[in-house]
Amino acid sequence: SSVVIYAPLCLSDSHRALSVTKSNGVPCRGKVLTLDNMNPNVRRVEYAVRGAIVQRAGQIEKELKEGVKKPFTEVIKANIGDAHAMGQKPISFLRQVLALCSYPELLEDNKFPEDAKHRARRILEACGGHSIGAYSASQGIECVRQDVARYIEKRDGGIPSNPDNIYLSTGASDAIVTMLKLLVCGEGRDRTGVMISIPQYPLYSAALADLGAVQISYYLDEDKCWSLDVAELKRAVDAARQHCNPRVLCIINPGNPTGQVQSRQCIEDVIRFAKEEHLFLMADEVYQDNVYAEGCKFHSFKKVLFEMGPAYSSTVEMASFHSTSKCYMGECGFRGGYMEVINMDPEVKAQLTKLVSVRLCPPVPGQALLDLVVNPPQPDEPSYNTFMKERTAVLAALAEKARLTEQIFNEVPGVTCNPVQGAMYTFPRIALPQKAIDKAKEEGQVPDMFYCMRLLEEEGICLVPGSGFGQREGTFHFRMTILPPTEKLKIVLQKISDFHVRFTQEFS
Amino acid sequence: SSVVIYAPLCLSDSHRALSVTKSNGVPCRGKVLTLDNMNPNVRRVEYAVRGAIVQRAGQIEKELKEGVKKPFTEVIKANIGDAHAMGQKPISFLRQVLALCSYPELLEDNKFPEDAKHRARRILEACGGHSIGAYSASQGIECVRQDVARYIEKRDGGIPSNPDNIYLSTGASDAIVTMLKLLVCGEGRDRTGVMISIPQYPLYSAALADLGAVQISYYLDEDKCWSLDVAELKRAVDAARQHCNPRVLCIINPGNPTGQVQSRQCIEDVIRFAKEEHLFLMADEVYQDNVYAEGCKFHSFKKVLFEMGPAYSSTVEMASFHSTSKCYMGECGFRGGYMEVINMDPEVKAQLTKLVSVRLCPPVPGQALLDLVVNPPQPDEPSYNTFMKERTAVLAALAEKARLTEQIFNEVPGVTCNPVQGAMYTFPRIALPQKAIDKAKEEGQVPDMFYCMRLLEEEGICLVPGSGFGQREGTFHFRMTILPPTEKLKIVLQKISDFHVRFTQEFS
Repeated sequence: SSVVIYAPLCLSDSHRALSVTKSNGVPCRGKVLTLDNMNPNVRRVEYAVRGAIVQRAGQIEKELKEGVKKPFTEVIKANIGDAHAMGQKPISFLRQVLALCSYPELLEDNKFPEDAKHRARRILEACGGHSIGAYSASQGIECVRQDVARYIEKRDGGIPSNPDNIYLSTGASDAIVTMLKLLVCGEGRDRTGVMISIPQYPLYSAALADLGAVQISYYLDEDKCWSLDVAELKRAVDAARQHCNPRVLCIINPGNPTGQVQSRQCIEDVIRFAKEEHLFLMADEVYQDNVYAEGCKFHSFKKVLFEMGPAYSSTVEMASFHSTSKCYMGECGFRGGYMEVINMDPEVKAQLTKLVSVRLCPPVPGQALLDLVVNPPQPDEPSYNTFMKERTAVLAALAEKARLTEQIFNEVPGVTCNPVQGAMYTFPRIALPQKAIDKAKEEGQVPDMFYCMRLLEEEGICLVPGSGFGQREGTFHFRMTILPPTEKLKIVLQKISDFHVRFTQEFS
Repeated sequence: SSVVIYAPLCLSDSHRALSVTKSNGVPCRGKVLTLDNMNPNVRRVEYAVRGAIVQRAGQIEKELKEGVKKPFTEVIKANIGDAHAMGQKPISFLRQVLALCSYPELLEDNKFPEDAKHRARRILEACGGHSIGAYSASQGIECVRQDVARYIEKRDGGIPSNPDNIYLSTGASDAIVTMLKLLVCGEGRDRTGVMISIPQYPLYSAALADLGAVQISYYLDEDKCWSLDVAELKRAVDAARQHCNPRVLCIINPGNPTGQVQSRQCIEDVIRFAKEEHLFLMADEVYQDNVYAEGCKFHSFKKVLFEMGPAYSSTVEMASFHSTSKCYMGECGFRGGYMEVINMDPEVKAQLTKLVSVRLCPPVPGQALLDLVVNPPQPDEPSYNTFMKERTAVLAALAEKARLTEQIFNEVPGVTCNPVQGAMYTFPRIALPQKAIDKAKEEGQVPDMFYCMRLLEEEGICLVPGSGFGQREGTFHFRMTILPPTEKLKIVLQKISDFHVRFTQEFS
């Protein structure tokens, strides 16, 4: 499922309207737009996180509502990192400011803390006509970009960040696709190749298929906690140079779906590799606050790059991505995010600015939310204590759930689970009996999809098969989010464990 | 500026990293990503509404803030249909519900009307975890899609609308680009051709450049109030069949930038033409509530299509688009919108659903807002009177401003202005003296850009040159929004009129 996707070609030889004459002499033509003559790149797009299994989960939910009897009473959708859907409560401060921005009459209301009002006033003053209903600048509201730059500087121990290099976006996905779009060029052997990890987050493979770029897969080392080895990067890029033009290296840290947190040394090696191989670096760092394992720490690519000295910090081209959807806030619905570009050619930057202007601007409520995330309440402000209490509770619960998940899964024979060092997912390896693999093939399914479908039908738990993210040939996995509330997570883990034992017995 | 854009080709012969050796023996390579080796389709994208003149307007604003002396004290940005930025106040009901959705603790507050609370509760119940911070279904929240379908049915006198055919989007732009993306296929003479009006809204030409599709220009008839003539459509499609595969016909009604409202007869003719020529229809109807001229009425393409009987209503494939950004609400910042697809091949629809799932979902606050727009307060509800008062006031003021604009411009020698029947813009024709045209060429500018830049520097008024929308060779125009408050609009119109006289004298 995860190898190379070639440059665009058309599925049918000709797309001109065909005229067929019916017996009554009336011309009878098919649809203008059919599966055969639509954009072939779109056909190649796959996005497992919301794929067939999630559609089936939706159907089952409807059946339950209609009173159909099932061995369970609700579907638990552990397929996606959607914190609020899993019951996580929004952070009060963020929502207070958003309510104030939405309906500024509330600024007269004494119920709201002064720091929330202050933030709302500041955001509104930066909006056209003092309304979040006005378009913003296409790159994002200037004061929000300034706050993002200050946040990055603070995070990276003072390394400067220029607001002109910050582009606000409609979630991180939007910025990632935009950046890839800029980078894709050439035909045949000159086509842009983009290196992505396997397993990967399928936004990447989907965007590459859509753009007709060449996917270059490099494998993470499951036996070493899904770590990244530069020798594997070198193998992959050398092989790819035979048939495309490798120009981009994408990294997800902390890892999705694999949950590893990269060491400082690893990041340095990757940066050195990117420079040597003349690659544009894309660092997907949306889980930067989600680090749980002892001894693990988030190191931003930007900080490591600048610590490597001017030979690197003034040459390596990079974009890094962040989002309001993950971390402690989990505000997925607002579609907030940003990217920072580093060492980008000024002429290309002008093209980037032009390109984003066509869509006018990212959603302004998401920009406002991002501003609060990068500029949260400070110790001397009235909302500080509540904010910190809420934030800490979410992150502590996630750390506990990460630990619990690893522990319970590793107790099941046939399941091997790396520690969830960070992010929000576990990607355990599952041993599938040969008879199950044969049965899946008989039914025209990949084996881990067969496994996940059975789990869904029997237990009402929706996971994503490992094949949706890519995995080494002959190995099988699934991705599960650790977001359900602790007590529910325990039940989910137990149900999956019991199912796995039952499934293994059935096919042995 | 507005003719044919050909399929992708690369600007440089090879994109492989070039190694040049410096005198010290250290290899010296250029940037990975440069203007020469970036995506050539992106380079071809142009979007005048936020182009060079708007960037200069931003600079002038900064200069004014820094105390630089100018012949004016503020820049008036009449380049874009951004109602709130022009001082229009948000509709109270919409914002009350949004505040309630953002911070549901406010549901306990007696200050909010019951119908606003009811709407907020209904939206929240349809959200994962009862939070607008959860992802929605990729196609949009189901109950919002149901409300949209009911709205369309009511608008179209009972013609049925299926919620499964509704796709919520990030503003209308997002849906338009997505639909075009599905339709683009083929290479060389088989490349998809897309018919767009000239003048057009430059989202279309930008999206076609980005997708490497072929733009087929058909001209609106300025002498007949910018009306659309099927003979001109026929001329354009016949000419285009020599070099591409015409598959799509895009219509903007009411027109942007031209402000015409199409008659029922015209729409029928267009639909008949689309069927005969086997074209997919895209109807951009985001200004459907913005109709001002006496005798003009908005007719939806869907309604006319269904009134033409089953030979049409069961065959012609169509997508129509709407948005929360225009009409009486003008909530551009929320990026809300939808499209309805009609007669779409079910397999293609499945591909569309898959494609939109990659971006996860449209912004949920925008979806909530759209729900209120399609399901506003009813006569028996407490917010009805205020809502109607606010709505009527906005639309009445726009009608007055449309009238005023036409009247004042037509008093100026050398300016010819069609009635602003609908939408939010005027697109007057301006006679430019030959000496001005020569001077512009000397300075490497198109003549109407030269004119608009002079206006900006002298009067602080920011318009968009007609060349950004396309116009018949040898004619010159500009687009101006009619959104400034009436008193300010009068001043703007007077200043432009005075400038035009002065400019004409200077170059005569």
